[in-house]
Amino acid sequence: MSEHDFLVNAAGRRVPRVVNGVEQVPYQGVGGYEPKGSKHGPPIRSCRDYPADGDKRVADLKTALQKCGLEDGMTISTHHHLRNGDRVALMALQAAAELGAKDLMWFPSASFPCHEPVMELMDRGVVQRIEGSMNGPLGEYTSHGKMRGMGVLRSHGGRWQAVQDGEVHIDIAVIAAPTADAFGNADGSHGPSACGSLGFALVDSLYADHVIVVTDNLVDFPCIPWQIQGNNVDYVVEVDSIGDPAQIVSGTTQITRSPDRVLIAEYVARFLRDAGIMREGFSFQAGAGGIALAFVQFLKDMMNEAGVKARFVRGGSTQFLVDLLKEGLTDYILDGQTFDLAGVASIASDPRHVATSPFTSYSYHGKGNFASMVDAAVLGATEVDTGFNANVNTHSDGVLLHGIGGWQNCLFSRCTILAVPAFRDRIPVIVDRVATLTGPGELIDVVVTERGIAVNPKRADLLEAVKGSTLPIRTIEEIKAEVEGIIGGRPEPPRLTDRPVAVIKWVDGTVIDTVWQVEE
Amino acid sequence: MSEHDFLVNAAGRRVPRVVNGVEQVPYQGVGGYEPKGSKHGPPIRSCRDYPADGDKRVADLKTALQKCGLEDGMTISTHHHLRNGDRVALMALQAAAELGAKDLMWFPSASFPCHEPVMELMDRGVVQRIEGSMNGPLGEYTSHGKMRGMGVLRSHGGRWQAVQDGEVHIDIAVIAAPTADAFGNADGSHGPSACGSLGFALVDSLYADHVIVVTDNLVDFPCIPWQIQGNNVDYVVEVDSIGDPAQIVSGTTQITRSPDRVLIAEYVARFLRDAGIMREGFSFQAGAGGIALAFVQFLKDMMNEAGVKARFVRGGSTQFLVDLLKEGLTDYILDGQTFDLAGVASIASDPRHVATSPFTSYSYHGKGNFASMVDAAVLGATEVDTGFNANVNTHSDGVLLHGIGGWQNCLFSRCTILAVPAFRDRIPVIVDRVATLTGPGELIDVVVTERGIAVNPKRADLLEAVKGSTLPIRTIEEIKAEVEGIIGGRPEPPRLTDRPVAVIKWVDGTVIDTVWQVEE
Repeated sequence: MSEHDFLVNAAGRRVPRVVNGVEQVPYQGVGGYEPKGSKHGPPIRSCRDYPADGDKRVADLKTALQKCGLEDGMTISTHHHLRNGDRVALMALQAAAELGAKDLMWFPSASFPCHEPVMELMDRGVVQRIEGSMNGPLGEYTSHGKMRGMGVLRSHGGRWQAVQDGEVHIDIAVIAAPTADAFGNADGSHGPSACGSLGFALVDSLYADHVIVVTDNLVDFPCIPWQIQGNNVDYVVEVDSIGDPAQIVSGTTQITRSPDRVLIAEYVARFLRDAGIMREGFSFQAGAGGIALAFVQFLKDMMNEAGVKARFVRGGSTQFLVDLLKEGLTDYILDGQTFDLAGVASIASDPRHVATSPFTSYSYHGKGNFASMVDAAVLGATEVDTGFNANVNTHSDGVLLHGIGGWQNCLFSRCTILAVPAFRDRIPVIVDRVATLTGPGELIDVVVTERGIAVNPKRADLLEAVKGSTLPIRTIEEIKAEVEGIIGGRPEPPRLTDRPVAVIKWVDGTVIDTVWQVEE
Repeated sequence: MSEHDFLVNAAGRRVPRVVNGVEQVPYQGVGGYEPKGSKHGPPIRSCRDYPADGDKRVADLKTALQKCGLEDGMTISTHHHLRNGDRVALMALQAAAELGAKDLMWFPSASFPCHEPVMELMDRGVVQRIEGSMNGPLGEYTSHGKMRGMGVLRSHGGRWQAVQDGEVHIDIAVIAAPTADAFGNADGSHGPSACGSLGFALVDSLYADHVIVVTDNLVDFPCIPWQIQGNNVDYVVEVDSIGDPAQIVSGTTQITRSPDRVLIAEYVARFLRDAGIMREGFSFQAGAGGIALAFVQFLKDMMNEAGVKARFVRGGSTQFLVDLLKEGLTDYILDGQTFDLAGVASIASDPRHVATSPFTSYSYHGKGNFASMVDAAVLGATEVDTGFNANVNTHSDGVLLHGIGGWQNCLFSRCTILAVPAFRDRIPVIVDRVATLTGPGELIDVVVTERGIAVNPKRADLLEAVKGSTLPIRTIEEIKAEVEGIIGGRPEPPRLTDRPVAVIKWVDGTVIDTVWQVEE
């Protein structure tokens, strides 16, 4: 078998049998795959091999990597809580390059435009491939077949699952820490580079062979609170700056001003209200995009009007969620990442604003997770088809431009709503067949556009619930036809080769779809 | 090889080669044993097999045990945070008995007099053995050879190490939770049976095949804060009462009134001051015994007098430590368990009062732990010999009466002080050879008695530091001779058979000593 042997999975998608030398399990439908075996057990360590005084500092990242036994072909992981302000991932990969390492696998929890220089490290053979989101320039690089290895995209929960289950073995985890002590206890909510939660780095700290904490704010032991436990950390490196604070968190997050998108946000809020989902003790998750923020504002007004309080809201947290908490409209924020300064200040000081990890929130290979207990999740998509299958990774031309984030994991909410414009740049969002399948239609309940709201026919209960409301409920086919009428036909199908450049993993580690190299 | 094949370990103690059918590693000296292999990986689970609404409640413990696949010979674990008020361990073992289970291994983090009815379950064949502290009546039962299997005593850190390293495989963990939600998130600091931290149950929740949470205070999801994560929990059982609040935590902890013991406490405090250990930013750990509490009061006065503040103090927390925190004499309490109501109230409300686990505090098979960063640990002992080797498990008659607790783990502090009366009930505490070796003399720095203070000759630095002080520094031989002069000779050696009934594990999982059946 090779990476050019394919089979057709349960979603009807052609996927490679082997990815980066490892045999794959094809997607088997939601809940179709039964995992076997045991969680990964990292090596047993002994206090005898660590300094009794707890001081694990070494001179620099290069020294730390050497002490971790850096070798060609190793996997180096980083986290993305510093977002587009991150300096540590590049520092680590460039230090590895200076040490002469080749063929590394970079395993970020997400990548950002600031990581564009990794392309040069890939050109030079230092990095063989990225398993993680390949946004923007890195996505294009991959789509054009320039990455030697195959990309593997996983959801936030899927990343935890893959590491926990031993599918990805992290040799060296490099954890950027806004605050840390010399023992390696680390926290994200304080310090000049504060980013809020460090939840995405938690799995790395638990399962990697070696763990390096990099900080620009060393405090005396104990660093309180700690989210990363020093007992899992090998070395601590002090640097001048782990990131650019202006790029780590927004000063404030921006609500959409587009009239169409404001209308979509209003429809989503009204849908939750009119369908009876917005009731005392309910819960919801919405992202930090412009539509999502506007939705929260509409919903807040409706909650106030109805005298209804949420039990919890899920972050990514922003000023808008923090306001709900402060105004008593929710008991808790359960927060996976922190998007603006208000979010950081709140998680650092309010015990009702609780950091979660991809394990608690999202991992499908746990004894349940929080995602399925959320009453409504409001998500985006690049494309959705008439079977409600959706794509968040590629655009209609098949070029890889986005990671999965928590999107797949959130599909397990009780009511999953895609809040999307009916078209973007004259390209329709509702299509016959999504270029890339990121999530199956059976988990997507509602598609809200400015031209109407389509409810998945499988959710007869929701259709019943909004019967008689003033909401513009239509079939997805109707909305699609209307948009095609305006634009003048269907979009061009993507022009792709038969060479796979990346795969999309489902939440259980199976392969749900393939990203193909684009034609030049 | 059998349990009656012995060898002599690095401490000169005769230990069995095999315990309960498992080959053992003999003690190899402090830091002598290098662990190999990987941490235990519990089975991979999938959300598909757990309720999407997060409601894991079942009717009762019996149902939960059945659903966990209870079988003869399994290991059932419990924790001891409810101390002598615990009702859950017995409930679980008795439910297993009603289901007809035989030959169970009970694996408590500690046992108390309230668990005496387990003897009856052992007589009936339901429980084959206990691995955990066998205090009081259970210790006597074991010492008289009535337990079918061999007892295994581990420190708090050693229990984590054994589970983490796969030496003890927990089939079913039963976690008594003062507060929990239906998903299994659980916390110890709130509710009618509040006990403070649940840190001892953490390893069970992480590594057991099956986890049952038992609570008498069910709250709506999410239970905030959670110390046990519902994502590791299989079933939740509601009961009327998990324990007797009056026995779970003391109303207040009692300081000693014995003049000799008050003097010991004062000597310990003066030693810390005069040796220069009590300095700005220092740290210490003392238990909740009468001497330890009196020591804290003396030290507090000296700290106030000198204008010195601690960086952190280690719990078991009590009113006395909480006062230090409130009065600004320490930045933090790092707390493994909570002994009185003041401790519970503080850990529930003050973010500077931080729950720790045996992993962060004590496990020797981590990348360091907190114990070696503590400037001074003040501990007790039943016996200490002239080589500073000490015993906390048996009395001079060789009868097993106490568990190890965190005692072995605390020996790694920078200055370990045994604060002990020179004799108890006319039996000298300083002996030629301890009946049972719990901790090696090389880690014990100072023995403080009412008749003088003996500094381990290996700690020339400490002897130098207190030179010229008014403290009664003497050799341990001098103190021993004085006590024997008063009592009229040396104590009777214990009268023991050649049948091992229990072993004492060192912090790294090796066997440091054997407890022998007493002669009838």
